[in-house]
Parts: sequence; structure tokens; C-alpha cells
Amino acid sequence: MLVLHHCSDARSFRPLWVMEEMGLPYELRMLPFPPRVAASTYLSTNPLGTIPLLEDGDVRMTESAAICQYLVSRHGPSPLDVAPEEPGYAAFLNGLHFGEATLTFPQTLVLRYRRLEPPERRLPEVADDYARWFLSRLRKGLSGLEGGFYAAGRFTAADVSIGYALLLATKLGLDAQFTPDIRDYWARLSDRPGYARSQAAQDAALMTQHVTPTDFGDRVSS
Amino acid sequence: MLVLHHCSDARSFRPLWVMEEMGLPYELRMLPFPPRVAASTYLSTNPLGTIPLLEDGDVRMTESAAICQYLVSRHGPSPLDVAPEEPGYAAFLNGLHFGEATLTFPQTLVLRYRRLEPPERRLPEVADDYARWFLSRLRKGLSGLEGGFYAAGRFTAADVSIGYALLLATKLGLDAQFTPDIRDYWARLSDRPGYARSQAAQDAALMTQHVTPTDFGDRVSS
Repeated sequence: MLVLHHCSDARSFRPLWVMEEMGLPYELRMLPFPPRVAASTYLSTNPLGTIPLLEDGDVRMTESAAICQYLVSRHGPSPLDVAPEEPGYAAFLNGLHFGEATLTFPQTLVLRYRRLEPPERRLPEVADDYARWFLSRLRKGLSGLEGGFYAAGRFTAADVSIGYALLLATKLGLDAQFTPDIRDYWARLSDRPGYARSQAAQDAALMTQHVTPTDFGDRVSS
Repeated sequence: MLVLHHCSDARSFRPLWVMEEMGLPYELRMLPFPPRVAASTYLSTNPLGTIPLLEDGDVRMTESAAICQYLVSRHGPSPLDVAPEEPGYAAFLNGLHFGEATLTFPQTLVLRYRRLEPPERRLPEVADDYARWFLSRLRKGLSGLEGGFYAAGRFTAADVSIGYALLLATKLGLDAQFTPDIRDYWARLSDRPGYARSQAAQDAALMTQHVTPTDFGDRVSS
């Protein structure tokens, strides 16, 4: 049985989304965010204190985009995977990494220094530096966007990796600066039944496990 | 022909190292760092302004760890690749991402706010926050290190991804805080003939192309 340790709308949403798209059975263990602080016993399960943690028998993985590739290739076959022989393979691998290393990490700096740190440790200039950094890389990296665009020619795990970065941008208010093409791409991704099922599974688990949803600080500042 | 756009000792060192380990023929195009600023005509080649850029016929990739997986799987077979059926597959994928998203990005904040920004924009508290962040993730994420340890059971592209983060740490002086296990692991990686060939190829290309090596600011501060 696949076990995913998850905070609502955090990076662990990527593997949740992939499992829902693939129709895989799984157990979802919800944690308050950030788990290192809000659920310190989690450190005995994952010493890094980060989410996601995926357990699959003896296998343990902590990198959300890597878990997406693992799920589609080890628990497939799935159209969300792209084989080395296919023409979209390079774009698939590039998109998996681009979504996380290039589009998500900079947003965590916006979240941290604009919202999560106590007021005396906030650094609006760092938040602004990395909001600009994110938006610039997003526009240029996805400049090939057209109607029907997906990172590797069809909807794959690479779009889940990039799509999560777009979801996080909506939480941080950065989506106001999406170009029309990026807005359309995000609409195509978030309109998918698999996305809706992932949100519903997350909401149900929050309720039955009595866990507080992730607070992205919307009420604190913009 | 594989063409790699590269700045010395920057992330693009990962694909260079993999190509040298595999004995692939390639062309190395050196750029001063950071290319966005120091070689602005590069923006017409790669609008992101980032390195690496790998060109392989019509294929263009910009994510260094993704390029490593692409090279070993599309230009293999190679022992640096791990197939989905092998027991080390999950650790291989996790290591590829862990090396970049978790171990390299935080160091770029140390570099930026401790060394590259003009003095009035330096933010030692951010550099310190992410130096701690890096060292903590490094120790906990590689806590399974033992004699002969590699991320996926043998030397693979995942070790190149993590190994580059260790190389960058030596440039930033963060290696002084490596644990003995991590110091041993880095010694095993940097003692490889493939690593030495990559450094030699880089040095030769810097000289013949008259490009200034990357300045990590060692003389500015520690």
C-alpha cells in the first residue's frame, strides 16, 4: 500500500494528484504545516521534517517531483509517463525539474519572508526579489505555450510538477501576474477531474483526521 | 553533436561530468558568470539566461539534473543509469532531485546575499538562514552514509547531482561543516577520473575560449 504524508496544498499535492490521475489506491496521512514545527513527532518518521514522504513497502522518497516519475514508471503503465524513446522525453524530464527547482523554491522565499516569519524577521526585499525571479522564469520558461500546450505534448507528470507551482502561485497572489497563456494552461490543468478528485480527497482527509489546513497567511499581508 | 553551454563550476558542471564519465563526444561553449549579465547576447540562445543549456539536435534542455538523466538514458546504456526495475530506482530519482532542489538552491541564496549582491543589498541573515538550511538537509538527507555509500547502491547520475552540491559547498566555504561521512563521500566522488577529466576539460575550454572563470567571491567575504 502506498502511504503519502501530506500537508494540504503543499508540494506533496503533486504525488496525490498523480495517484488520483492514475486511480491508484493509497493512504493519505495529513499533517499540519509546517510539520517540523507543528507536528514534531513526524521527525521520527522523516528526520528531514519535510513533506512529502512516500512509503511504498521498503521504499521511502522525499522529493515530490521524483515521486511523480516513480509512480508513473513503477506503478504504470500510464499516459502520464514518457518513455526515453518518445519525442517528448527531454521536455518531460526538464518539466519535472523545472516545476520544482526553478518554479517552486523561489516561491517558498516569498512565503517565508513575506508571511511566515514573525514581523521583525520579515524581509520584503527578498520576497520581492524572488517573486520577480519566479514570474520571469515562468514567462520565459513557458513561452512556447499555445492552445492545447502541455510540457511534453500531452498531459504528463511534468504538467503536475509545473501545475503545483501554479497552484502555489494562486495561494501567494502571484497569479495576478500570469500572462493569458499561463492563465489558460492553469485553467486546463485545474479543470481536470483528477485535480478535482485530489482536492476532494485532501478535504475529506483534513476533516476525518481533524487536521488544520495549511495557512498561507492570506490574512496577514499580501 | 551534444552542445553544452557552461560556466565554470556552475550547475552545468553536472552534465559535463556525466558526459566525461560516459565518454560521450560533446562541444563545450564557455560563458562568463552570470551569463544573463556578463554575456547578454546569450539571451538570444536561451531566453531564460540560465545555464546549463544542452542542445542535442532539436532537443533543448535547461535543468541540469534532468539533463543528467536524459544523457544516461538516451545516450546509454550506462551504469550511471538505474532502470525502473532495479532496486535502487527510487533512490536514484530521489537523489537526482535532492541534489538540486534541496541542496543547491539554498546555496544560491548564500552566494547571492553574502557575496554577489553589492554591499548595500547584502543580507547576512538570509545567507545564514540558508547556510543552516543546507547543512541540516545535507546531514539528515545523507544520514544513511556508510563506507562505499552511493545514493542508489553504485555510482550513478544521482551522485553527480548531489556531488555538484558538495562542489558548490567547497566554493562557499560550507564544507568546513561537513560531517566525516559526507567528507568521505565527497572524497570518493571528487577522486574519480571522470571528475578530474571534467575539471581538465573545463580548464582547457576556459583558456582556449578566453573566458574568465566563475568568481564565487572568495576574496570578498567568508
